[in-house]
Order: sequence, then C-alpha cells, then structure tokens
Amino acid sequence: MKKINVALVGLGQIGNYLMNELNKKKKDIELKTGKKIDIVAISAKNPNKKRLFKINKKLFYKNPLEIFKQKKIDIIFECVGLSDGISKKIVETALKNKIHVITPNKALISKHGDYLSKLAEKNKVNLEFEASVAGGIPILRTIKEGLATNKINKVYGILNGTCNYILSEMEATKETFLNVLTRAQKLGYAEPGNPKLDLNGYDALAKIRILSSLSFNKNISKQKCLMEGIENIESKDIDIADQLNFRIKLLGITELINNKLFERVHPCLVKKNSYIANVSGVMNAVILEGSPVGESVLQGEGAGPGATSSALMSDFLSILRGNIKFPFGVSSKKRKSISSYDLNKYSNSLYFRFEVNDKPGVLSQITQSFAKRNISVERLIQIPDHKSKKASIIIITHKTNELDANRCLKLFKTNKNILKIPTRIRLF
Amino acid sequence: MKKINVALVGLGQIGNYLMNELNKKKKDIELKTGKKIDIVAISAKNPNKKRLFKINKKLFYKNPLEIFKQKKIDIIFECVGLSDGISKKIVETALKNKIHVITPNKALISKHGDYLSKLAEKNKVNLEFEASVAGGIPILRTIKEGLATNKINKVYGILNGTCNYILSEMEATKETFLNVLTRAQKLGYAEPGNPKLDLNGYDALAKIRILSSLSFNKNISKQKCLMEGIENIESKDIDIADQLNFRIKLLGITELINNKLFERVHPCLVKKNSYIANVSGVMNAVILEGSPVGESVLQGEGAGPGATSSALMSDFLSILRGNIKFPFGVSSKKRKSISSYDLNKYSNSLYFRFEVNDKPGVLSQITQSFAKRNISVERLIQIPDHKSKKASIIIITHKTNELDANRCLKLFKTNKNILKIPTRIRLF
Repeated sequence: MKKINVALVGLGQIGNYLMNELNKKKKDIELKTGKKIDIVAISAKNPNKKRLFKINKKLFYKNPLEIFKQKKIDIIFECVGLSDGISKKIVETALKNKIHVITPNKALISKHGDYLSKLAEKNKVNLEFEASVAGGIPILRTIKEGLATNKINKVYGILNGTCNYILSEMEATKETFLNVLTRAQKLGYAEPGNPKLDLNGYDALAKIRILSSLSFNKNISKQKCLMEGIENIESKDIDIADQLNFRIKLLGITELINNKLFERVHPCLVKKNSYIANVSGVMNAVILEGSPVGESVLQGEGAGPGATSSALMSDFLSILRGNIKFPFGVSSKKRKSISSYDLNKYSNSLYFRFEVNDKPGVLSQITQSFAKRNISVERLIQIPDHKSKKASIIIITHKTNELDANRCLKLFKTNKNILKIPTRIRLF
Repeated sequence: MKKINVALVGLGQIGNYLMNELNKKKKDIELKTGKKIDIVAISAKNPNKKRLFKINKKLFYKNPLEIFKQKKIDIIFECVGLSDGISKKIVETALKNKIHVITPNKALISKHGDYLSKLAEKNKVNLEFEASVAGGIPILRTIKEGLATNKINKVYGILNGTCNYILSEMEATKETFLNVLTRAQKLGYAEPGNPKLDLNGYDALAKIRILSSLSFNKNISKQKCLMEGIENIESKDIDIADQLNFRIKLLGITELINNKLFERVHPCLVKKNSYIANVSGVMNAVILEGSPVGESVLQGEGAGPGATSSALMSDFLSILRGNIKFPFGVSSKKRKSISSYDLNKYSNSLYFRFEVNDKPGVLSQITQSFAKRNISVERLIQIPDHKSKKASIIIITHKTNELDANRCLKLFKTNKNILKIPTRIRLF
C-alpha cells in the first residue's frame, strides 16, 4: 500500500480536533483510498498545551518552515489561520515544493487565492479549501463537482454562525446584543478576544468572495463591497421585526446582474415563513440558483472543530483518491475578471429606525426629508417612551435605491432632535 | 486536446434534455476538463419523434447493442430506465467492454448495483448514478466525497417529488387524491400511464436502498421492508393533521440501530414547524446525521429533466476529470452485509382513523381493543356525519410498537360497524 507523508501546522481548536480524527480514522482512510497515511511532522506555538493527544516530540517543529528542509512531505494541513505572514509562507513554500495543501483559512484564500492557485497549478499539486466556507457543508465541492455544468446566477445564505447565533438568541431571550455576545464567547461560538471580524461582516464577505469565484469562474474580487455587520442591531429592531412578521438575518449574497458582479453582506429583514428565516443558531445555509438544476439548498453546521474537520478530511480524501484538480474548478488562465455592479442602483424596501426627542415637528421633518429624496413611505410606526420624552420612529419604505437612501440619511445628520444615526435594515 | 467518444441510449424526457445540454455545453466542458467530447452514437425506440434537436441519422442505432460492435465508445449514458432487460444488458456490455457508464436508473441500481459495481471495478471503469437519487441534489457525491470520513448514523428525507406534490396540493386545494393525481399527471409530475411505483413507496425505497449502501458501506439490501405509499391518504386525514398542527409527508428513512439496518418508507405526521414539513411541492430534501459533521440538510428539485441532467452532467465531468472510482465509495470487497432490525420493535405514536357506523357501543369496542393490546390512547376525536349516520373516529396513541399495532388492527377485521380498514399514519 502506498504511504503518504502528512504534516500538520497549527494545533488550535481545529488542528487539535483534526489530528485526533486523522489518528482515529487511519483504517477508514485506507479502506476508502487504498493509501496508508503517516503523520511525520506537526508544528504549533506551544508543544506543552493540553490536547486531545500526546505530542510525539520527535515529530514536533517549533518553526514550521523547518519541516520542508528536514522531511519529505506529500500533503500539508495549514491550520494557523492568518491572512498573511506565516500562513502564506507555509502554503507558498509547500506548493513550490510540490506538496498538496489543505487549509480552512478563508482570510488567506480570499486575499491570496488567485496567486496561490496559480502556484498550485504550475507545480501540479492540489490546493484545497473546502473548510474555508460554511464548515461542514460541502458547498465548494458541490459547486465544482456536484453542479459542475450548471450556470449559476446567484448564491446567498447565512455564512457566519456567530452572527446567526447572536441574532437567534436575541430573539429567543430578549436580551441585549452585548449580553448575548458574552454568552456566545463563553460557549466558544465567538472569538473570546476580538470577535470584530465575525460581527462586522468581514468573515462572511471573505466567504462570499470565494463562493463568487467558484460560481462564476472568475478571479477573486478585490473591490470594496457593501459590508455591514450586526453590531448596531438592537433588541428593539428584533421586536419590531417580529411584530411585522419578519426576522433579522445577516446574509451574504453574490449574483450576476447584467453580467456585472454584485457581492454584499448586510443584515436583512426576511419573512418569518421563508426557509432562510428558519435557519437558527450556529447553523449555516447556502442557497444556489442555477440552470438547469433550479434552486438548491444546503444546510449544516457552519463552524466548530467537528464540522471543520469533516471538510478538511473530505479534501484529504479527495487528494488521496484523485488526480490533480484546479483549485477553483477551472484553470487560472480561464478565469475572468468581471466588473462590479453599481451599488447605487441596489434597490430594496428599507426599514429605518429613528430615535428622536418626542417634540412636535420632528416626525414631519423626517417625512419631509423622505419626500425630498423621492422615497415613498409604505408604513410608519411611532413608539413613544413617555418617561424619557423620547420616541422611536420606524419607517418601512417602498423600493428605494442606495443612492437616494444615502442622500436622505445625510439630511438627518444636522437634526439635533434625531439622537443617533438611524438604523437601516434592507428587506430581502 | 484528448477526444472522448460518447454514446447516449434512450431519448425520452431525460435523454432528450441531456442531449441538448451536451450539445450546448461542449465549450464549458472543454474549459473545465480539457477534454473534447464527440457524440458518436445515439439510440432510441423512435428516431422520428419530435425532439429538442435533430437526430443525425448517421449516428442513430435502432438496436443499442449494435453500438458496441460498430463504434469505439469511452462513455455511455443509459437513459432507458428499466430494472432489467435492455437497460441491464447495455450497462453490462458497456462495463465488460471497459466503457464508463452513467445512468439515472434507480430501479437498475437498487436491484443490480452490487453486481454491476463489481463488474465496473473488475474492468477498471466508472459506474456513476448520481441522478438515481434526489435528482438535482448531489447527495451521492456528498456522501462519497464531501462527507467522506464521517460516520453516518441516519439518512432520511422526502425522496419522491410526485408524492410530495400530491400531498402539498391536497392540503392547499382541499381536493381529493384522485383529482390532484390527475393534475400531477397533466403537469408531467406523475407518470401518465402507471404512477403506481411512485405512489406506493417503491420509488422512494429504491432510493433509500442506494443511500443506505453508500452511507453505511454495505451491500444493497434485498430484504422485505416496511413500504407504504400515499394511496390511502384522504383529504380528511390532511385536514385533521392540520388541526393537530401536523402535516403528512411520505418519508424514506434508513438508519443503524444497534448495528442493525432499518430501512423504511411510509407516510409520517410531521410537526408543521419542522424543517421537513416545509419542503413542499416537487422538492426533495435529504437530511443526514453524521459524526463529526452533525446534521446536514440538502434540498433541491428532485425530478424533471433539468435537475436530472444536472446530476448526469456532474457524473460526466467527474469521469472526464478524474481517475477510476469505486461506484459505492469503497471497494466491493470491503462492503459488508448488515442484518436487519426487527420491524416489530419499531415504536411510534400512531394516528388511526376509523370510519364507523354511528351506533352506540362502537367507540367502546374500539377503545377496548386498544386496551386489550396495551395500547395507550393519548387523544381521541370523534367527528359525526349526522346525515349518513356515520362517524370518523381519530385516535392518537402513545408510543406503540408495530407488533402491538398490527395485532390490534386484526381485532377490527370482523367488526361490521367498522366500514373500512382503518388508516394508520406514524408520527415522526
């Protein structure tokens, strides 16, 4: 039986779990691939941390780059997770040395994926990153293989489990954003140190950029995109949405509109009885619209070491079983660049929440501004808070484009009776 | 560029659509695989039927077996659809001649899959049948590749679009089973001639048997299974289910219970707010429970030429791109046989509907029979029909095993006040 030498760099939550899986499933892997695997090198910052397995000191490298000098490796797992620095260096060096690479690192792939895939193709090795998008859902393989000849027009979904957990919990418990965030951190659903990249939409956008590339056979876009997170969503918004028969979800969306690429991430009001509204907790879901297949839905655990390991292992088996594959499904030479859709034209019904002083004239100032920008109001709700002499004013508009909405919002900046920047949520 | 010779046998709804796709997507296939495809032979019963494309008479064969004698073929599509006969003969001959086979034929695979996969392995060619289960949903590839090293414990779902359409429509329109079936046939959702194999659960069971084999790395089971269709579901049942906050769905289910295999297909009462209850119309959905990935859900169009072609094309690209693969994910030699779970032990809450003469004593006769078999009644509803002096009696039981339920049902056979065999639906 052919022996395959494997190295694993990064023994955090994911690397740790993966190592254990690799050890446990050696027999199963042999059965399914006819290859014998041997873990010949591991690397992590701290060899002495408590882990699911005992580190064999003979295999341990403090500096992962030493591995390339001292061992013959066939496949390497990069589980460090930086967008640059040592993560990039490891992947680069591996590919140049004709070593297959498997990584769950969406930050790296969404930033350097084009360059690294060219490097992989040049050296005739695989660069696999199934785990970088939607954890346990084999969405990249589904696009590259399962739906291979479909013309995909749109892909969207819930791509960040942390945000989805927080929004679901805020609705279920009526607690504040900060309280729920703290709990999410305790449960390991949100980064304990700096959860910003999850909450501000960056993480979901990195995934959307990878999904776009695969779905539309194009390079990874670098353009600035509409990216809004959930940091400004308050319990109040969730309550009001509930009354209006909506739920708030952070969606990532990519589509081709008249052959222009439109990628965005922002909170959306979705109808309660829609499929996407009922994906709750840390679950992820991806919806694809393709021809001839129609609408396909994939749902599963989006994060956590179990789901991520499942995806890493599927990449591993794919390499062990198969021959060389293009990292993005088609040759880098054949991937196009697509120009961007003009965000200003993006048109939705909008939800606005104003916090105002409850004084005569304030409401009419607001509605006048809407009229001035030709924004038509579909629904208006005023919720007074008599004690504090303040009020919340909620406005749902008819379809409004981003340009008009942004211009309208500017008009409120100087209004002292409007106590904070109005909250805007787009209807889906 | 390497040239690949392709043959296509069967030009019904699916073959017709597929042929058109193959012609339209030649460029895309070249881009993604680096192979040039050439359709060198086609075969159908009638060369003169109206089709999406013009048949090139030079490529046409009345007898598909002639193709093997006269042309050099690399890949053949079998789209005839019989469980035996010419379908089996074509696939057998192709494999023996070292020709890759792609088929959407679940009847053939669920009956002869073990034999044919051995033949494919022996001749080192691929036998691909993604389209045989859940149409456009790449579920087989997901199990074989995307979730490759997961330990799968249970797979279930809505696997027959015809039944799901009928049940959804009966609920939406309040029409009878027969009226809705007639419409389904007109719309092409149900076989115009003989829809029996869809309606009686046979089609879903064939798919469940294929899913079991892949999920549990085992041979295709031949044992008799619990198989019930939707032919006896009446509008009345759907109405009552609705009032009790349930919906009726035909589910296919396979799981391992204490290392015993338990496959079944039957109508289920599912809670309205559950995911599966909200998959409606011709949609299919498959839910997998695996470790470490957790619960994965895949939903998409389950039938129709578009969805089926999507799956056939994914098989085609897999062959064009890749090397030899085991049809069932692992070598036939490594696939086990698993003994069956004892159906008598299967335990559910049950829904019974009795149609009775509205006479004194009938209700007590029924409840006494339940008591005799130790079946505990959770809920009882009697709906009188004063005009006809008849009544419907609905009983929801506490958890009851199949043995007790069947014994109890026997007790009613001789009761002349019970006007027809009681309807039984299991709660999920």
